[in-house]
Amino acid sequence: MKLVSYEVQTRLGRFERIGALAHGAIVDLTSAAGAFLAESQDANGARKHAEALVPPDMIGFLEGGSSARKLADQSVAYVGARLGSEPRPVGPQGERLTFAESEIRWLAPVPRPPMVRDGILILEHFRLGMGQLLKSEGGAYLPEAAKTTPIYWKPSRAAVGGHKAPIQWPKYSKQLDYEFEIGMYIGKRGKNIPVERAWDHIAGYTIFQDMCARDIQPAELTFRVGTGKAKDFENSKVMGPCLVTADELPNPEGLRLVTRVNGEVWFDGTFSGWAFTYAQLIAHVSQEETLAVGDFFGSGPPAHSCGFEIGRWIKPGDVVEAEVEGIGVLSNQIVRA
Amino acid sequence: MKLVSYEVQTRLGRFERIGALAHGAIVDLTSAAGAFLAESQDANGARKHAEALVPPDMIGFLEGGSSARKLADQSVAYVGARLGSEPRPVGPQGERLTFAESEIRWLAPVPRPPMVRDGILILEHFRLGMGQLLKSEGGAYLPEAAKTTPIYWKPSRAAVGGHKAPIQWPKYSKQLDYEFEIGMYIGKRGKNIPVERAWDHIAGYTIFQDMCARDIQPAELTFRVGTGKAKDFENSKVMGPCLVTADELPNPEGLRLVTRVNGEVWFDGTFSGWAFTYAQLIAHVSQEETLAVGDFFGSGPPAHSCGFEIGRWIKPGDVVEAEVEGIGVLSNQIVRA
Repeated sequence: MKLVSYEVQTRLGRFERIGALAHGAIVDLTSAAGAFLAESQDANGARKHAEALVPPDMIGFLEGGSSARKLADQSVAYVGARLGSEPRPVGPQGERLTFAESEIRWLAPVPRPPMVRDGILILEHFRLGMGQLLKSEGGAYLPEAAKTTPIYWKPSRAAVGGHKAPIQWPKYSKQLDYEFEIGMYIGKRGKNIPVERAWDHIAGYTIFQDMCARDIQPAELTFRVGTGKAKDFENSKVMGPCLVTADELPNPEGLRLVTRVNGEVWFDGTFSGWAFTYAQLIAHVSQEETLAVGDFFGSGPPAHSCGFEIGRWIKPGDVVEAEVEGIGVLSNQIVRA
Repeated sequence: MKLVSYEVQTRLGRFERIGALAHGAIVDLTSAAGAFLAESQDANGARKHAEALVPPDMIGFLEGGSSARKLADQSVAYVGARLGSEPRPVGPQGERLTFAESEIRWLAPVPRPPMVRDGILILEHFRLGMGQLLKSEGGAYLPEAAKTTPIYWKPSRAAVGGHKAPIQWPKYSKQLDYEFEIGMYIGKRGKNIPVERAWDHIAGYTIFQDMCARDIQPAELTFRVGTGKAKDFENSKVMGPCLVTADELPNPEGLRLVTRVNGEVWFDGTFSGWAFTYAQLIAHVSQEETLAVGDFFGSGPPAHSCGFEIGRWIKPGDVVEAEVEGIGVLSNQIVRA
């Protein structure tokens, strides 16, 4: 299932909703479940049950586990059957069961993950990219500990944005760059998760755009304790367009990534050469630390896939997008105030 | 006002509450407001109004701004007047208006800050401490950019704990260490906050214990992108015991810090020598990034105040505490499974 979060504007203000990409539309999961349940019970009760069982927030839905998922599957099938005869089906209280993309505003699949952590699991990117940024002798940098310990850093939750959100060029930077990665969401809470059970804790995958003020980054690397303003600014951590559940996409390693700027291909390659798996990253981070449902983990980009690695630079107005097979296209425009 | 968050166990399960340290007790702010309002209106209505105006969660209360604070002040005074004649006053529905420390479990003043960021504002600690950890020539390390840019890193929200919470010695470490700092909470949302208005965004201050697996830290420093397991484990980021509002404590610079291990003084000094103020840190971080109500910022410790800087090491079973003038005592025991 391809799950999405989005906002719908109504006469009573904006509402956050969750949906599934199915039947060429966005199926509103809470309303679809309400309409499906109303086939066999009172419509008011069905609406309340639907809001409890398939709530319109992604973390609440993921917490519902397999029972929430089963009702979602049944509800999407129910809407599919009605779409054969009705172009725009509504529920018993006039609520829309589907939306077109033009009617919604995309949010990140989990609009506000409890924690955002970004792995650098493809070490060849780290070795050459960091070597370039640090101006290392021989152009490479790979500390000994990186061979045995997965590297990760922690982006700001305030920087999370969704598909199509405008990415503000920060006033303090002259050199903005993109990094496209796989994103992963935790679906089951846990602490001290053994690596052999770690895959069971993954809800699914998305595309991750990790924008970077490349001219600010070298100074922050000298601090050694963490990246700050080079990486954290509004809509710089873009996730989307959808969360593909792990039953549909069991392992993201090796997936093809095509990066385009204003439609021109700048990178065409694969997410290959992982030094550590997502399972190993989960096992490492969850040591004495609880991972929550909705926690996000980035994979790091493939080697040679970022602008600074190929000597090409984006500019204000550019549309930067990534297509990852099995997930979709994540697209955002760079804007400058 | 000294604000606290805590849990109360009841026959209907555990509830999170907020209170004020006053009259030698913990005054439950929501119940106190309900009882105060019930003097002039129906008791059921008063309870509902109190829950809306002084809700039992700290972020909700801080979002209420000066009107919530005014009602809290009135309610604390009302409880104080009753304490003269009643040892344990209750509200109109039998709800307790005060608690003793033995009746509650402490939580961090903001139990789950939207973001946790930790500044290293006293550069002498960074220069000598980092020099020691990196084994720099001459024992000092201070990159050029640190002179113009406030350094900060981002701890895990999953590691936040409260006063008296047991600190688990992580299985992967042989060398645990403490770092005591001032903590600060944001009380007013903002982005691109100018330094001259930044103080207005501060709700108040607390004590911050930033535990560190000192043997894990050097390897993570070689990654340069962020501290991970050296700093993030359960209850390693302790905040408390209370949030002292900024009207009572206008500026934390220069406050006296006394650190004790099992009652023995290991450090007695002051938070002095700030290279950057909290206002400068707020201005820096809030560039193109929204700070939320309840966001936490650490100050970094004074120079020579941590165990590794004085060559002394804590062990399982130790009670590690810090007293900061004007705030109180933050105390936790180190436990090993």
